[in-house]
Amino acid sequence: MQVSKIAVLPSGFKANAVNCGIRKKSKLDLALFSSGLPAKASCMFTCNKIIAAPLVVCKKHLKAGDNFQAIIVNSGNANCFTGKAGLKDAEEMASLCAKSLGIKTKSVLVASTGIIGKRLPADKIKKAVPELACGISKDGIHRAKKAIMTTDTVPKEITVKFRINGKIVTVCGIAKGAGMIAPNMATLLVFLFTDAKISQGALTGCLRGAVNKSFNCITVDGCMSTNDSVMLLANAAAGNKLISGGNSLKLFSCALDKVCLELAKMVIKDAEGASKFIHIKVYNAKTYAEAKTGALAVANSILFKTAVYGENPNFGRIVASLGSSGIAVKEEDIKIRVSSLKKKEIDVAVGLNSGNSSAEVYTSDLTPKYIKINAEYN
Amino acid sequence: MQVSKIAVLPSGFKANAVNCGIRKKSKLDLALFSSGLPAKASCMFTCNKIIAAPLVVCKKHLKAGDNFQAIIVNSGNANCFTGKAGLKDAEEMASLCAKSLGIKTKSVLVASTGIIGKRLPADKIKKAVPELACGISKDGIHRAKKAIMTTDTVPKEITVKFRINGKIVTVCGIAKGAGMIAPNMATLLVFLFTDAKISQGALTGCLRGAVNKSFNCITVDGCMSTNDSVMLLANAAAGNKLISGGNSLKLFSCALDKVCLELAKMVIKDAEGASKFIHIKVYNAKTYAEAKTGALAVANSILFKTAVYGENPNFGRIVASLGSSGIAVKEEDIKIRVSSLKKKEIDVAVGLNSGNSSAEVYTSDLTPKYIKINAEYN
Repeated sequence: MQVSKIAVLPSGFKANAVNCGIRKKSKLDLALFSSGLPAKASCMFTCNKIIAAPLVVCKKHLKAGDNFQAIIVNSGNANCFTGKAGLKDAEEMASLCAKSLGIKTKSVLVASTGIIGKRLPADKIKKAVPELACGISKDGIHRAKKAIMTTDTVPKEITVKFRINGKIVTVCGIAKGAGMIAPNMATLLVFLFTDAKISQGALTGCLRGAVNKSFNCITVDGCMSTNDSVMLLANAAAGNKLISGGNSLKLFSCALDKVCLELAKMVIKDAEGASKFIHIKVYNAKTYAEAKTGALAVANSILFKTAVYGENPNFGRIVASLGSSGIAVKEEDIKIRVSSLKKKEIDVAVGLNSGNSSAEVYTSDLTPKYIKINAEYN
Repeated sequence: MQVSKIAVLPSGFKANAVNCGIRKKSKLDLALFSSGLPAKASCMFTCNKIIAAPLVVCKKHLKAGDNFQAIIVNSGNANCFTGKAGLKDAEEMASLCAKSLGIKTKSVLVASTGIIGKRLPADKIKKAVPELACGISKDGIHRAKKAIMTTDTVPKEITVKFRINGKIVTVCGIAKGAGMIAPNMATLLVFLFTDAKISQGALTGCLRGAVNKSFNCITVDGCMSTNDSVMLLANAAAGNKLISGGNSLKLFSCALDKVCLELAKMVIKDAEGASKFIHIKVYNAKTYAEAKTGALAVANSILFKTAVYGENPNFGRIVASLGSSGIAVKEEDIKIRVSSLKKKEIDVAVGLNSGNSSAEVYTSDLTPKYIKINAEYN
């Protein structure tokens, strides 16, 4: 497995981005990813009961068909809490994209990120789509990865290559999320591309596994977004033998896990205002679910997060958050180890002495800068 | 009903406080409340699975007997996560107090607040108890209300008087809680005293109702303490006819509700680092439970709290937190009204269009000062 910290689109994929005028002129705000060959898609979306219009469109298209050729994404506006008009806008984004690429509307996926509750400037998008579609190229990924950024300070990108029976298979991912997995200007969006030939069942199984161990294990502020989306396209251009089980599935799964986990860690390292990267492991728990619930309770405790910011080794805050998490814990069973708080990367290990399961989650500290960023955004 | 913003102990109650040396000399840190007559008690404690040693002792004494004559409380140390030694320390606090007052150990309740995970200096407490017990007086409440403070900037106190069949009945309460209902140096403790003659069932019912509408409706940081305790003593010294139902029960319940709600609001107004007092009402919900869950989800959203701090009217953050709260909400049903964010007191009203229930909760904004306080405490 060869890992590169730069996005390299797999065979058959192209991308582009332009400024369509949602944001200031110097900032790319509309991106397109396309595959010449029809691709299988697997997606995971936020569990929030209020979801943005593009997610409604994606769910409809995923139900209707099994061939996908494009994803169109804007930043600067979440197109959420925008009612029927917003749904029409998202549908129009898909159909304009389809027309410009000469493909079917139902083979297009849509994503948006930005402020909630404001109408998309549909006219601006309409004007920009033909130029956007016209300019797609393999290197366009480097414009696209910037176009999806909001309060991110760096793009998040990674590529993993490996061989299956002599054929090189590529998995490439980009992500945005300014550390906070949150509803405003910082929604998590992840786009994954592979040229692997893989069955739909294997693709979906691998994505679910990879997301649960990565994007579902990070938290900055415990706020759940209305727009969170992870989209994976597989276009079979690598020419490998179909992956549906055995060693080749293990290899693919391992590569996808790596891509997702690294992107998730990059999100936390770029967390808004953060000064520390915190890795929390809960071990010797009864079940994986209990371990993860306990670890996330610590990760979401703002008292714990402020203690880390202040380099203040206050273990009581860990104990109190475990006790309030709902999992079974006994005072006399808890073992806590915390690495030096003076460093940038902190390891917290909590043993529960009630079984053999463990879970790891990642978070950041909570700083005055986080509050400044979120108080002042307008 | 006559309301006074100063603590006036009801007939038969006395109090005192001293510095025993847990904290610096100028700070009172050990308080005692006593009743000459045996009193009925009703208590409510944190739901955290890790609870402090004094709570274990209280639960044992409440199970064993129905006559209570004293509460002893220290600040500066939570006596939590201190194992068997900590439990012995809490038991010793009770027995020393009992000996000095000439009462039974099981008629004493114990409370602690402060840092988690450190042994109580039992010797210092032992030395101080005789002087503490010796100096009790009606006015001692004004020393005691200060002794329980930690990061509180002002004491919280209130007295309500009303008549039942010509007899004056008093309900007096003091509270500590530096705005954050949290595990370190800021645990919520509430002590309530009444001279009402009331049945045990009525007393417990009234306390449960009052706490659910007050202390269970406030949040600063969503962190659940290991030491939260609300203790109510009723010594029957007012000489009223037994309250067990009817109008007199309504009057008592109303007075206790008032005392608890005012104390809860005082806690929020003194919240660590807070610059705003936020009142959130969710109405037209299916059930009270759904209304409260929705209101608390908004109140605990740190994005919403930072928006209020920044006077930034970002309604998307309210919508997103409702959608992630687990209650049934539809985008098209949500109605949001927010009063001017420029003022100190903010009203948020959210209609859900799914029923006739409503709930109100209280919270504060999240500020850089909160982080400074909690990062720097050592």
